[in-house]
Amino acid sequence: MSIRIGILGYGNLGRGVECAVRQNPDMELKAVFTRRNPDSVKILTDTAAVCPAAEAESWKDRLDVLILCGGSATDLPRQTPEYAKLFNVVDSFDTHARIPEHFAAVDAAAKEGGKTAIISVGWDPGMFSLNRMYANAILPEGKDYTFWGRGVSQGHSDAIRRIAGVKDARQYTIPVENALAAVRAGENPELSTRQKHTRECFVVAQEGADKAKIEEEIKTMPNYFADYDTTVHFISEEELKRDHSRIPHGGFVLRSGATGLESENRHLIEYSLKLDSNPEFTASVIAAYARAAYRLSGEGAAGCKTVFDIAPAYLSAKSGEELRATML
Amino acid sequence: MSIRIGILGYGNLGRGVECAVRQNPDMELKAVFTRRNPDSVKILTDTAAVCPAAEAESWKDRLDVLILCGGSATDLPRQTPEYAKLFNVVDSFDTHARIPEHFAAVDAAAKEGGKTAIISVGWDPGMFSLNRMYANAILPEGKDYTFWGRGVSQGHSDAIRRIAGVKDARQYTIPVENALAAVRAGENPELSTRQKHTRECFVVAQEGADKAKIEEEIKTMPNYFADYDTTVHFISEEELKRDHSRIPHGGFVLRSGATGLESENRHLIEYSLKLDSNPEFTASVIAAYARAAYRLSGEGAAGCKTVFDIAPAYLSAKSGEELRATML
Repeated sequence: MSIRIGILGYGNLGRGVECAVRQNPDMELKAVFTRRNPDSVKILTDTAAVCPAAEAESWKDRLDVLILCGGSATDLPRQTPEYAKLFNVVDSFDTHARIPEHFAAVDAAAKEGGKTAIISVGWDPGMFSLNRMYANAILPEGKDYTFWGRGVSQGHSDAIRRIAGVKDARQYTIPVENALAAVRAGENPELSTRQKHTRECFVVAQEGADKAKIEEEIKTMPNYFADYDTTVHFISEEELKRDHSRIPHGGFVLRSGATGLESENRHLIEYSLKLDSNPEFTASVIAAYARAAYRLSGEGAAGCKTVFDIAPAYLSAKSGEELRATML
Repeated sequence: MSIRIGILGYGNLGRGVECAVRQNPDMELKAVFTRRNPDSVKILTDTAAVCPAAEAESWKDRLDVLILCGGSATDLPRQTPEYAKLFNVVDSFDTHARIPEHFAAVDAAAKEGGKTAIISVGWDPGMFSLNRMYANAILPEGKDYTFWGRGVSQGHSDAIRRIAGVKDARQYTIPVENALAAVRAGENPELSTRQKHTRECFVVAQEGADKAKIEEEIKTMPNYFADYDTTVHFISEEELKRDHSRIPHGGFVLRSGATGLESENRHLIEYSLKLDSNPEFTASVIAAYARAAYRLSGEGAAGCKTVFDIAPAYLSAKSGEELRATML
């Protein structure tokens, strides 16, 4: 019998989860829940229902895992605790600083409902966190580095769009090659914000807008751009659509450490991702953890977990025997 | 209270474990067991005992984890099941093809003794296996690649030393840059043995030996060299000692996969290691899994486990709260 999946929220991430479920033969998408008018939402899976979000509760006994595909700012802090009482859930909550309070709220709800919840699943938080943790456990004496990109930052793109005279924008975060090279060379550099990443902006200005003023506003924007070397390109709406409509991302997690009686031997652990589609990759990680949520729940686990708490084998459709014989 | 560690076998790996334990403040080395005369074995830790291997059993209640540092060919297949009846154990059994039978023997012994055993810990098998498994679970549609090196292969160095006229030798396994580049470019190449790695040999010949004959014997040796492009350099004993006495290694695990309704988006997951000391890095991974063995045993787990079966948080000295707040 397949793992019966529901999706709450059908944006880029929800659609990505739908595609990921299709790649996993042991899973089946049963329903998509949306706050829009269900008649207006066209999904890719003929055999799944499209239902109003308000009806999700009535699917309580017809789904094994509900995947929450809302945003971290306002949706998930409310939705994950709410639905963790009723369903095994997985979310991709990515506001790093607020993870402890989100964990506490979801843990209480999941325990109340006797369900398994897994939060902050994706690549950062998610696979990058795992790699930071493994590398720290292996090399207690060392230094961590995370670089993001080259990839689109939705938050920075939005910040540019809020500037007067801007019609549309796309912002790329780019790791500084020299900084990466210094880390890889074992130099253990101290890197400022400016030394780690640059920002490249592609902006469609409204007709007659003052481009010099827009560029100045971007480059001096606190938190978002002021601490970075930022490049601004003005392009046409057609160019933006043609050249910048994908959502690539990726990055690098490195730990440079030492072992030996006198710390005489140096080691570098590096994990990197190069992703054509940030939401589809995030969704693929989520699908694997949905399998884990289903299995853990079957074993009677209740409460909130993160990627740190889940044995890798739970993510795989293969048995322990198969994994040992083919991948160990 | 510290985790009380014992080491059985004091070669490069045993000494590496001793150094790793010193980097982990929650662990303490209590005893080293050796088959040599204990008086002839000088260790680095003043507070630990050096004892004959035959006395290990009498330490049953004085150690939390016994780390088995013997070889995979003949030591571990016998030692790990034997000691798993008495101690929580960790080994680095690395004969991939024989892992299933080793697992079965150790599992039966550990269950009989009510102990936790973790086998095949290190980087391959070990961290490389984990990364293969995670990447496969995330991207079900894709292709795996593992490259080793640049690093010293003990097995290949030994094979050269067995040739008549060879006094000493060191062999480096080197990944082919073009092959790695093709994988990173998402070309999903089919790679033959020869296309993935080259082999470079540094050989000290005995006086008057026929160097041309030695070179020919190396290059045509079945399994070890015949399927590779091999380079042979004859050097002096002094040069070998000066330039080739370290034991570096490393490598790359990659998975190139696709997502999306029509597999239209490509993704690359890459994990790599660059290690000055193969045995010390292996030992550092083992130390982290010794912590896991201790904790799992405290929870009443009995039987054999591999890296696939152990939740990452068990490896870290940090609490769940700390991990979520600092690394997620």
